[in-house]
Amino acid sequence: MRPLSRRGFLTGLSVTAGGAALAACSTDVRSSTRTADTTADIDPAAVETRLEGAIVPFDGVHQAGIATPAQAHLNLVAFRLGEEVDRAGLARLLRLWTEDARRLCTGEAPLGSLEPEMTTVPANLTVTCGFGPRVFEVAGARDRRPDWLAPLPEFSRDQLDPAWGQSDLVLQFCCDDPTMLSHAVRHMVRSGTDYAGVQWMQQGFLRADGGAPTGSTPRNLFGQLDGTVTARSDREWDEQAWIGEGPDWLVDGTAMVVRRISMNLDSWEMLDRTSREESTGRTLDTGAPLTGGGEFTEADYEARDGFGLPVIDPDSHMARARPAADHPEQRLARRSYNYDLPPVPGSGQLSNSGLVFICFQQDPDKQFTPIQARLDEADRLNEWITHIGSAVYWIPPGTSADGRGRDAWWGAGLLESL
Amino acid sequence: MRPLSRRGFLTGLSVTAGGAALAACSTDVRSSTRTADTTADIDPAAVETRLEGAIVPFDGVHQAGIATPAQAHLNLVAFRLGEEVDRAGLARLLRLWTEDARRLCTGEAPLGSLEPEMTTVPANLTVTCGFGPRVFEVAGARDRRPDWLAPLPEFSRDQLDPAWGQSDLVLQFCCDDPTMLSHAVRHMVRSGTDYAGVQWMQQGFLRADGGAPTGSTPRNLFGQLDGTVTARSDREWDEQAWIGEGPDWLVDGTAMVVRRISMNLDSWEMLDRTSREESTGRTLDTGAPLTGGGEFTEADYEARDGFGLPVIDPDSHMARARPAADHPEQRLARRSYNYDLPPVPGSGQLSNSGLVFICFQQDPDKQFTPIQARLDEADRLNEWITHIGSAVYWIPPGTSADGRGRDAWWGAGLLESL
Repeated sequence: MRPLSRRGFLTGLSVTAGGAALAACSTDVRSSTRTADTTADIDPAAVETRLEGAIVPFDGVHQAGIATPAQAHLNLVAFRLGEEVDRAGLARLLRLWTEDARRLCTGEAPLGSLEPEMTTVPANLTVTCGFGPRVFEVAGARDRRPDWLAPLPEFSRDQLDPAWGQSDLVLQFCCDDPTMLSHAVRHMVRSGTDYAGVQWMQQGFLRADGGAPTGSTPRNLFGQLDGTVTARSDREWDEQAWIGEGPDWLVDGTAMVVRRISMNLDSWEMLDRTSREESTGRTLDTGAPLTGGGEFTEADYEARDGFGLPVIDPDSHMARARPAADHPEQRLARRSYNYDLPPVPGSGQLSNSGLVFICFQQDPDKQFTPIQARLDEADRLNEWITHIGSAVYWIPPGTSADGRGRDAWWGAGLLESL
Repeated sequence: MRPLSRRGFLTGLSVTAGGAALAACSTDVRSSTRTADTTADIDPAAVETRLEGAIVPFDGVHQAGIATPAQAHLNLVAFRLGEEVDRAGLARLLRLWTEDARRLCTGEAPLGSLEPEMTTVPANLTVTCGFGPRVFEVAGARDRRPDWLAPLPEFSRDQLDPAWGQSDLVLQFCCDDPTMLSHAVRHMVRSGTDYAGVQWMQQGFLRADGGAPTGSTPRNLFGQLDGTVTARSDREWDEQAWIGEGPDWLVDGTAMVVRRISMNLDSWEMLDRTSREESTGRTLDTGAPLTGGGEFTEADYEARDGFGLPVIDPDSHMARARPAADHPEQRLARRSYNYDLPPVPGSGQLSNSGLVFICFQQDPDKQFTPIQARLDEADRLNEWITHIGSAVYWIPPGTSADGRGRDAWWGAGLLESL
């Protein structure tokens, strides 16, 4: 039994409710049809309150937007630093951006904004800042760059498009309201424009199941529960994601890996349900391992069916993704979003969909890379997915408004120690 | 005093609450800061219930998604009919799509779906079908095509991109959950693929203020309340939007005009607040006319300031958009969405944002076109907005599942009468 943190408690609640609904659905879809006149059930004042009160604290030991239960909307914005930006310019940008983000996330209009109406309801906005490898060169701190902050090894199935490649900086904006999200991105793109230009944006979404507090596992566009195996308890976050050793400027940060994964819905949908479930090793309805139980039940990789064949294919996604027996550190915290763009004319595809796969860990070389190497070698899902973008960032530790005991702005610990 | 319909009542509620918050904000932004630890205020069970029970009835006198209070997300999908599709093929497609939409909107898996889990929570999904001019040719009913179902006149400031032009058919998907929306679009694009291909998709969003029931006026990306003047009461819908006269197949339908309006945030944001408000004639905080009152107060176009100048500029957006004195029919029902795409490389712009402007009326020639002609001639907002897409559709009347007294599928009244 996992310890019940506040977050785990809320997650458990919604998983129970959602699981019951899904189980009902798989036997008789119509039994889950609801009454048509539903407005009577909804208290408008309570609904108004839902987003208005929803603020994720900006300052803290770690940056927000990482262990924060995933909001409904993502805009992951990559920036290229201007050629002329040096360490001092970089520090000015980060100071400015930190102050912008702190205000936006707490419902205050950022400095220079003439539109306070756009920022009164942060709707769980988080803004998380990451540094690409080149930041350490710009800062004149090449010797401090963590070894893992470098391009990932090429995997055999990668079809990387440079348009989704490494950038100098990244800002991950997550929010339960798309208009607030749009405004926050717009404001910070503009406020940083003297120092950094937009290289790419990866917009994504999850089920809007009431926002952060419920935090049930979302579905991807293949219909799978996506994110079941991830850090949940504080202990798991400490073990898997937060950097616990090293110089002060590094500790309490983490490493972010971004992979853009294209999902071929056209060919996926030609599969029957059994084949879909065998490819991952989990059922589509509850996300339980094919050996039984619920979403969070341990899989029984030894179980055999009546023909003596493994119930969970050793090449299924879940079997390949689990840590190697002698490498329990091969786990990570996932925080991915779906994307769904208009089909590309001439592609012959009906959709342009996939996953903005985001994960956090202490060291990608020991966590993401060995896992991905196993998946690249053999994962039944590979027939329907393609990695088309890749980037790695160091996420500096969290901040405090007065700078006491923590960085006053993103990366201050690093940049002020030089 | 307007009559209080159920919808008006709920709108009034949220406007009051929102208005108070905004008024507080405009004097002291910090006074609207909320407590950081907010999850304690939220009952997870109530949040789960919010979307799960939210179904907009599919069948009815009129199609849903028109007078339905706007959901948070839009995907407006334009289709080109295949060259070989004739009247019989068109009828098969519409029958298929109607059945798909009816099931998706009520939380049942559509025929052929292997993913019932994706459709159990419709989250106020509506799917609304419209016919472009060529459908009447394909149907062999050219003589029945309404006169207004034709390209709009060219306006002098238009910079129309054919990529956002007229299509044969349109499906307007609106939903409070982006994953449900994505799945519904995907399903119907695929199910129609033998008959029609995607020509364009216009994805959009509004503030996620708790979904349809609250229905307060949303803000566009200029920060303006957008949609204050629109049909609200049943009487206004009857007067402005629903077609009341003509053959049976036509009556209870409406006309949809779609304009893609690019909004130049970069130059807009160089304006001070006063200039922004003068350009529309309304305040930014509450949306009230500059002559005072609240959002829904009548403007006083005769009012003069201390210098004898009109308080509301005669060239302001609201002054130009109001009906001509002798043409009270120049009103329409607006249902627009914001869009916000990554900036176009090389454009020199920091954003690629605007409005998917959608309006409904009885006759665009008498409603949209004269209004737009006045705006095109002189509207202070024109400096910051550009119309880049244009299309017109006839929206067939509503349906009933058994076809008794109403069409069993979209356009059956027209196609079965030929």
